[in-house]
Amino acid sequence: MRNLTEDNLTAAVLATLSNTQDARLKTVMASFIKHLHAFIRDVEPTEDEWLIGVQFLTDIGHLCDENRQEFILLSDTLGVTALKDAINNRSTERVTEATLLGPFYREGAPEVPLMHNIAEGLPGEPIIVYGKVTASDGRPIPHAKVDIWHATGDGLYDVQIADFNGAMGLRGIIRTDDAGEYRFRSIKPASYPIPSDGPVGGLLRKLGRHPYRPAHIHFIVSAEGYQPIVTEIFVKGDEYLESDAVFGVKDSLVVEFVRVDSAEEASRYGFQPPFYKAEFNFILDTAS
Amino acid sequence: MRNLTEDNLTAAVLATLSNTQDARLKTVMASFIKHLHAFIRDVEPTEDEWLIGVQFLTDIGHLCDENRQEFILLSDTLGVTALKDAINNRSTERVTEATLLGPFYREGAPEVPLMHNIAEGLPGEPIIVYGKVTASDGRPIPHAKVDIWHATGDGLYDVQIADFNGAMGLRGIIRTDDAGEYRFRSIKPASYPIPSDGPVGGLLRKLGRHPYRPAHIHFIVSAEGYQPIVTEIFVKGDEYLESDAVFGVKDSLVVEFVRVDSAEEASRYGFQPPFYKAEFNFILDTAS
Repeated sequence: MRNLTEDNLTAAVLATLSNTQDARLKTVMASFIKHLHAFIRDVEPTEDEWLIGVQFLTDIGHLCDENRQEFILLSDTLGVTALKDAINNRSTERVTEATLLGPFYREGAPEVPLMHNIAEGLPGEPIIVYGKVTASDGRPIPHAKVDIWHATGDGLYDVQIADFNGAMGLRGIIRTDDAGEYRFRSIKPASYPIPSDGPVGGLLRKLGRHPYRPAHIHFIVSAEGYQPIVTEIFVKGDEYLESDAVFGVKDSLVVEFVRVDSAEEASRYGFQPPFYKAEFNFILDTAS
Repeated sequence: MRNLTEDNLTAAVLATLSNTQDARLKTVMASFIKHLHAFIRDVEPTEDEWLIGVQFLTDIGHLCDENRQEFILLSDTLGVTALKDAINNRSTERVTEATLLGPFYREGAPEVPLMHNIAEGLPGEPIIVYGKVTASDGRPIPHAKVDIWHATGDGLYDVQIADFNGAMGLRGIIRTDDAGEYRFRSIKPASYPIPSDGPVGGLLRKLGRHPYRPAHIHFIVSAEGYQPIVTEIFVKGDEYLESDAVFGVKDSLVVEFVRVDSAEEASRYGFQPPFYKAEFNFILDTAS
């Protein structure tokens, strides 16, 4: 393994995997080396370009902490996350489509009762979101876990709002009732730019891409005996549905938030009119 | 751009480059997206594997600081650096071969006179290294800049030795004399493991690869009107010449360090015998 040239370098690097015991790691690294070398051969980076790449990855790493994952943002904005999700959610059964988890999920959201207002005390347009969780054969799934999180009408998650000071907000876990139904109150989310003050935001600007995501609410729905689903519902009519910066929109996940002006109906939910109603039913696949 | 699937996702991501003004950036990113997606399609990572990848890159970023560049180490150990170097040093003229810069280069090494001992005061086997810097037609190049750095007999660079406390050691810049000759004294370097306490070291262990580089001395040789060369000379007989962890060894760069036992010859250089002599001539290409 001397005198390596453009012709034999890739083979020499692959040959170093001959002692790798972990078969899956060997497969992944062999593929990674092949595709990475193919990229280098394709673009023939100069010294300066290679260093720009090293510095770009370093800057991304430096920005990652417990509240921010800039590498996931890079994966999201390059469509890698959406591709990984598509690969991991092939299904022959008719179930709810999956989409991105995103970088703002936090474990341990509070368990709250049906109809809880997860935006209690926050300004915004009131909403009620409701529906059923069923199996693909239509049977309701009682006691399914519906983990919900979303941004404010200003497009900010709790971790991005200084007033929260690390506390959770706009998050909650609801259990479906005996009929498999869930319902909760909150405020209407808005479209928002993904964090764009870091290296990924800088890249998007240089590429002439906007950083916006259409308004959405995140869900992880799970129940014993079923495959959990990570998905989002999108607000119909949002101007960014056709150009989501992270490639996550699916027609089946776009939901009309119906405006209600009736004071009487609003008062039933403790709202002032107008408010918005959105219905979405989740269909889970049985665990394999 | 909705309802993206495995079939149309890559095309959709590439389409977002339609507004990119910088033509080179557009070319590089289009290639990067294509090869990255091909890798994902090839290995079909699970959610957990994708997260392991995200965490691996994050850990690498967190380890990078002014004294350590773990992304360059990753590039080196995957042969990307050697490939980039090969691409950037194609030459039809007969010139000295290039090899890796490595992560230990520091700008601003002290300018020292011919025959200076750049390891003054450090324990080790004394060496003298000497030779000529010429153009490819054989003409000597006076006043060429020879920037030298290497590790101790324990395989440590100055930045890795606490006693140096940030000061430079085992480094120096020498100017060739009127005959294009350089010469300096130092101590014999040894083979050493690349920094292996980080994510890249962990990866090498999982892959069953050793982290060693054969003993070498780094050089950047430059002169007005010529293309600078980044290279290394290797100590003939080193046990890792055939398995350099960063794929940098070339036969033309392997040099015999000839043992000299003569007390008289040693005294000429201020050495105690034995000492070692190594001759290497650099040939530079004219600037294009």
